[in-house]
Parts: sequence; C-alpha cells; structure tokens
Amino acid sequence: MNDPLPSWRTGIAKSAVVDFVARVTKEGSSDFVAPTERIATFDNDGTLWCEQPMQVQLFFAQHRLKELAANDPTLRERQPYKAFLEDDMNTLAVLGKKVLFEIALATHANITTDEFDRMVRAWFSTTEHPKLGRPIAECVYRPQLELLSFLRENGFKNFIVSGGGVDFMRPFAEEVYGILPEQVIGSSVKTRFEMREGRGVLVKLPELGSFDDRDAKPENIFLHIGRRPVLAFGNSDGDLALLRYTTSGYTTSGPRPHLALLLHHDDAEREFAYDRDFRLSPLAEALDRAVDYGITVVSMKRDWHTVFPEPR
Amino acid sequence: MNDPLPSWRTGIAKSAVVDFVARVTKEGSSDFVAPTERIATFDNDGTLWCEQPMQVQLFFAQHRLKELAANDPTLRERQPYKAFLEDDMNTLAVLGKKVLFEIALATHANITTDEFDRMVRAWFSTTEHPKLGRPIAECVYRPQLELLSFLRENGFKNFIVSGGGVDFMRPFAEEVYGILPEQVIGSSVKTRFEMREGRGVLVKLPELGSFDDRDAKPENIFLHIGRRPVLAFGNSDGDLALLRYTTSGYTTSGPRPHLALLLHHDDAEREFAYDRDFRLSPLAEALDRAVDYGITVVSMKRDWHTVFPEPR
Repeated sequence: MNDPLPSWRTGIAKSAVVDFVARVTKEGSSDFVAPTERIATFDNDGTLWCEQPMQVQLFFAQHRLKELAANDPTLRERQPYKAFLEDDMNTLAVLGKKVLFEIALATHANITTDEFDRMVRAWFSTTEHPKLGRPIAECVYRPQLELLSFLRENGFKNFIVSGGGVDFMRPFAEEVYGILPEQVIGSSVKTRFEMREGRGVLVKLPELGSFDDRDAKPENIFLHIGRRPVLAFGNSDGDLALLRYTTSGYTTSGPRPHLALLLHHDDAEREFAYDRDFRLSPLAEALDRAVDYGITVVSMKRDWHTVFPEPR
Repeated sequence: MNDPLPSWRTGIAKSAVVDFVARVTKEGSSDFVAPTERIATFDNDGTLWCEQPMQVQLFFAQHRLKELAANDPTLRERQPYKAFLEDDMNTLAVLGKKVLFEIALATHANITTDEFDRMVRAWFSTTEHPKLGRPIAECVYRPQLELLSFLRENGFKNFIVSGGGVDFMRPFAEEVYGILPEQVIGSSVKTRFEMREGRGVLVKLPELGSFDDRDAKPENIFLHIGRRPVLAFGNSDGDLALLRYTTSGYTTSGPRPHLALLLHHDDAEREFAYDRDFRLSPLAEALDRAVDYGITVVSMKRDWHTVFPEPR
C-alpha cells in the first residue's frame, strides 16, 4: 500500500495517527466510529499554516489599512494603526491576539459580505508571505495537507476551528485544504441583513460576534457541529479546551476512541521555534501537561520529513 | 421514471420544484450550479412539521416544566409558568413567539448538553402530539420528506434554519429528515465549557445566544454556511428575510438561479388554516407580496396530495 503520509517520518506521532484511523474505521471493531460521527477539527494558525512572525490575517488587515489610510491619513498618526502601517512588530506583539483581531475586524466593517469575499480572494491570489517569500497558499504545512486528505478518504469530515476570521479563512480553506465553507468555524463579527436596491445583502458590523479561542472553541463546536469531535489538532494553549473536549467523549460502553494532537514548533531551521516564547505563543501548559491530558505531541523537527509544499 | 414527489399534486408548485432541480443540475447549462453550491435551507416549524396549536418544542418545555414543578411547586403560581402548566392556550398565545422561546430556554438551563440530548431523545421516543394524536415523528409533512430526499439525490445539501432550539431539533432532524447535526441552524443559548471530574463538558446557560428568526436567519446562514442558498422554503413572515436573501444571488453573468417557496396553511380539513390569523402566525406580507418578491406559494390544500405520513 502507498504511504498516505509521505511527509511524516516514521515514529510515535505517525503511528498514533495511522493506528487511530485504522481502528475507528474497522467495522465490527469495538472502536468503530460511524462515518457521520467522524468529525475532525483543526486549528488553523500555527497548525495548518505558518503563523509567524504574525498571523496571515494581520498581513491582510495591514494591506486593507493602507487602502483606508489613503483616504484618511490621520490613521498614520493613531495607535495601534500607526504600528500596523509602519511594520512596528514590537508594538504589535505586545498588543496581544484579541486586540489585534478586533483591529483587523474594524478595518473590514461596513462593507457587505459579498464585497469582503471579493477582497479576500483578490488578496490571496496576488500576495506573497512577507517573511517566507512564497505565495500564501504555499505557507501551509505539507504534512497537514496529506493528513486532511487521508482523513477525508477514510470518511472523516474535516472542520477548521480557529481564532481567524471565519469569512477570511473560507475562500482559502476551500481552495487549499478542500474544506467547504460550512466546515469552517472561526471568529466572527455580527452582520446586519439589509435590502439594498431590492437585493438582500449582509453588512459586516464593527462588533465582535465570537472570538473563537480557548473555551469558545468547544462552545462553537457545539453551536455549529453539535457533536463532539473524535480527532482534534492544535498547537497552543488556545487549543487546550478543544483538545480536552475531544478526549472527553463517552459512549454507553465507556470512553470513546479519540485522538488529540498538538504541533510543537521546535524547528528553527525549517520554520520557527517558539514553543516557550510566551510573547509569541503561550503553549506552556499544553506541552507540560500533554501526557496527563492524553495529548500526542507532534514535533515539527522530529516527526515531519518536509514542512512546506513544493512551489507550484 | 418514477415520480420523485408522489405526494405532490401536478401543478405550478410541483413543476417549479422539478424544473428548478433539472436546470441547476444539468451540466453545461447556463443555470448549472456546482454541487458544493447546492445549498437548500428549510424552516422547520410550519414548514417541515406541524406547528399548531403550538410549536412542538413548547410541548417539550411543558413536559420539562412539570418535572421542575415537582421540585419547586411555586412555579404553579407564577406566570407564565402557570399558564404553561395549566394548558392555558389563550394566555400562551398572547405572550408571543420570542417570550415563549425564552421561557423554554430557561427550563433547560444549567444542565450539560449531553444531559439535554438524552432528555430530548427520551421525550421524542415516548411522546404523542397532544392534538394530532400521533407520534411526533409522524407530525412531519410527507411531501417535504419526499422533497428532502429528491434534493439530496440531486446533490443538494439540506439545512434547517429555524427559530426552534438548535439542540432540540438535532436528534429528530437526523433520524426523521436525514439532516446531520452540523446542518441544523436554530435558536441557541450560550454554553460554558467546564472540566467536571476531569472531563470537558458544556453547560447550557439561561442566556440567549441567537433567536433565529427573521433577519437573524440570513445572518446565521452566513455565520454557519458561508454561502447564499439557492433554494429556501418557509411558511411565515419570519422566513421572509431567508427567502429574499435566497432570491438575491448574483454571479458575474447575472442573477443566479434560485427557488424560494412559501407554504400556505389553507387546509383546515387535513391540517390547520391559519394564514391570516395574525395571532397565530403573521404571514400577511409574505402572501401579499409573494409575486413581487419572486416567491412561489405552495398551497397545502391544492398542491399536496397527502399531508402526513402513513402510521409506522
């Protein structure tokens, strides 16, 4: 049989994945999971694609802010916009994930969801990652593309459950990951339904709907999917609730089979090593307690043969 | 070819459905819609199943309230609980949809989502509709079961988009409609993730997340599905925004094919006739403006050969 995961090196992590899929898909086995219950959930930033030196969505927000600043030059003098426009990474880093996210949202407000979708698609198709120097679509992890396909071929339904903006991720997720828009869960702003020239549209509001991080991940999984996943893959403390929700499934005959995976960013050579850099990505608890929590750690350095896809 | 919709009488409504499906599934046709974009959205109460003399979920809330009143008899003296417990339909009718819904939510609060799921399944499997005198699973409309199957066989993905509680509808939707939990959108309460005895659970809070009616329907479609439906089926003014959102799709070559359907409850003999009874279900605008809005009205009396399924 062909190896379904050629970019994964032989070892504990790869075996855990391959064995799990074999167990839950084997009819008649006590670990069999019905196809409709084969829900796999993936964080996006730092799990499916690179999140350093800052999240891809923030590059997009920066691009959009430059367009806005062309009409409103006062943005260049006001923080945090100033830091964004000047690539002042130190100031941005101390602002924290949620504040950055809210700023990103504000720069997208008061346009229709149709307009926003066009904007995102145009940006993705023309932009290179400023630090990696490759198209955004090639900043995804090749081992994860293989894993998504492997799971799909085995009857799993893959979902993204990420802090990224839901409508920012969707166009990309469908094209690059093969994950349909209705299988993307993310942070969101509220929208308002309006009739404009006889046509029903949705306008994005500068008001947070859900910040899909930490405990909000299982909460949103319940709201959107309505089932506990059997597989979850994350990379930071922001994914701990997601991972622990996944390991907590029970059936009438006992604990349900599950697989919780945590990507360890320990590969400074091929990507970035920032596992203990609290400023960049707090994941100390997830790493320290992985064994207690039943989480399998995937080391980028040890477990991945290749990190990024070949240039297209 | 076998008639895929035997419970539908030959006429304008049936032709509209059959012709639409033929057009959008014909490869090479200018009206072709790719399978991933074949999103069909259905209201539930009054569209897929009977909502008279009150919504099915309210019978469940009443059942639950009786359990609670056994421990807290003061509920029997306080409105609106008193009216609920005494089957005082006149008082309940004037309270309105949203208040009733919030009361229903309050009676389900502070239990885990796993417990609530078990409660709902037990109730569905043992309860008859108090007025129709048949199991709840047989209070669905047979022509709609045929339509759901017909659409599914033609590559559509069916979603429920209803004011009913999302977690109340899911167990039933999967079993009776063949609609998976992740394809059910409804009203929701907030939940809180908690570790209980080492296990990650979600607790239902007595706090409204979304009341999925009127403008909230397209807003939630965007949040959950991320695509504009090509087909929508509703039965009241609460579905107007859903229907008009569906008729507003555009592609680069012009308006996108769509089908918006409105069920007209005009059959006092086989179900209920309440189309103009403002107290029961305001749908005056939807009926009066259907032609202007591009909505096809389906008359229960004229267009449906059979209303309910045969007893099982």
